[in-house]
Amino acid sequence: MADPWQECMDYAVALARKAGEIIRGALKEEISVMTKSSPVDLVTETDQKVENFIISLVKEKYPSHSFIGEESVAAGEGSILTDNPTWIIDPIDGTTNFVHRFPFVAVSIGFVVNKKIEFGIVYSCIEDKMYTARKGKGAFCNGQKLKVSGQEDITKSLLVTELGSNRDPETIKIILSNMERLLSIPIHGIRAVGTAAVNMCLVATGGADAYYEMGIHCWDMAGAGIIITEAGGVLLDVSGGPFDLMSRRIIAASSRAIGERIAKALQIIPLKRDDATN
Amino acid sequence: MADPWQECMDYAVALARKAGEIIRGALKEEISVMTKSSPVDLVTETDQKVENFIISLVKEKYPSHSFIGEESVAAGEGSILTDNPTWIIDPIDGTTNFVHRFPFVAVSIGFVVNKKIEFGIVYSCIEDKMYTARKGKGAFCNGQKLKVSGQEDITKSLLVTELGSNRDPETIKIILSNMERLLSIPIHGIRAVGTAAVNMCLVATGGADAYYEMGIHCWDMAGAGIIITEAGGVLLDVSGGPFDLMSRRIIAASSRAIGERIAKALQIIPLKRDDATN
Repeated sequence: MADPWQECMDYAVALARKAGEIIRGALKEEISVMTKSSPVDLVTETDQKVENFIISLVKEKYPSHSFIGEESVAAGEGSILTDNPTWIIDPIDGTTNFVHRFPFVAVSIGFVVNKKIEFGIVYSCIEDKMYTARKGKGAFCNGQKLKVSGQEDITKSLLVTELGSNRDPETIKIILSNMERLLSIPIHGIRAVGTAAVNMCLVATGGADAYYEMGIHCWDMAGAGIIITEAGGVLLDVSGGPFDLMSRRIIAASSRAIGERIAKALQIIPLKRDDATN
Repeated sequence: MADPWQECMDYAVALARKAGEIIRGALKEEISVMTKSSPVDLVTETDQKVENFIISLVKEKYPSHSFIGEESVAAGEGSILTDNPTWIIDPIDGTTNFVHRFPFVAVSIGFVVNKKIEFGIVYSCIEDKMYTARKGKGAFCNGQKLKVSGQEDITKSLLVTELGSNRDPETIKIILSNMERLLSIPIHGIRAVGTAAVNMCLVATGGADAYYEMGIHCWDMAGAGIIITEAGGVLLDVSGGPFDLMSRRIIAASSRAIGERIAKALQIIPLKRDDATN
């Protein structure tokens, strides 16, 4: 039987590569920075331009498909996930990196049907690394097959996470005390390159053993989520329960044992879900 | 007048590139990991092999020169800086990254005469980025001239630092409370790629606005220190006073204003100097 979504995936890879070119071009020019909800949460003209570029070209080819995009949601569109084929798009994952030209900026596309991720694309465009995964067919970076480390011992692990963009004092305190509890286990270390999608791809390559974060969105996780599982990793909720794409929280680990140990250490930050209706 | 140290610098670049090849080769093989002072502080055969490689070839060409190398010091050799031309070497900056194959691993060489850094080389060998700087002649990455961001406003800054390898509870608490104070200013964010030398080079490129850390060593700072200043940045002590290469602490900033603001926020961790004699 022919793969019903292979054509969509090939199209997504081509769009992500072209979007990456737009981003690299913009990085050579001056940037006019606007402010979203806080000075930390930066959004740029390029962000909107890249999202419009991807959505308009997908709409042309697949008029019946649905979309959830970071910039469309910021502009007031909903983000309720239905059973319809849905493109979940982050035009620039790592907007703060982009503004500073810190060299990790990714285009993320996740494709979801019946609420299951069918394929994911993360194009880390400054590094020119194209990460892809199709359900059941493995994960790849520039054509090379990816495999998680398989590490099960937390005391031998290297983790990735972020300090986030929320500057509420209580939230900062929980984020840092979670780090403190993990470091004290002890673990080998914690890294942060400034984009959820690239952090997750680093777990998929085996370069890090797990990623966790609270406060991110479905468009930060949909593309890289299946790259993790197709590389042999697991996705969990920060409670240790099943992963929920709309929950704004994730543990992406090289093994269930490491994921569950991290869950045990984490204090949970209260968050409004991506699909909350009020 | 001919540059008295240009020949040494050309030799150092060639050695760093060759050392990077050894490291990349080792990453393809299985790694036998030994443990230095703690499970976090990992050292590998490659670390020693690369340092011996560099030192033996420099000794052959410049028999009167002195050396301070991470592995030689670990093996019991002193690290007193004299006025003699001295090669300060970190064969693998980012040993934990190396062990995990987290893709930022650097060879760092700083060359110091009369206690002043004359040139510095940082070869980020997985990325294949060769950072170089000669005193008075600018800083470069793969031949492209580097310039710091020049940012003076801390609230618009992106910082780089590390959580470090010390797992003493008091030290962890200070490191995290320093992050808390900086995040609360607020700043745009904090990144950590796992090597002091590459973090500092990211400041030199303008991708981050400042780096700070306590607990690192002269071999982590000597190569990248002059890359920062030749790119237009400043080096300060974490107290805000003058930078001291043997003090194990540093602020490397794109402007004096940002450096001093960071110094104001930092609680200082007590440390034994690199040149302590007892």
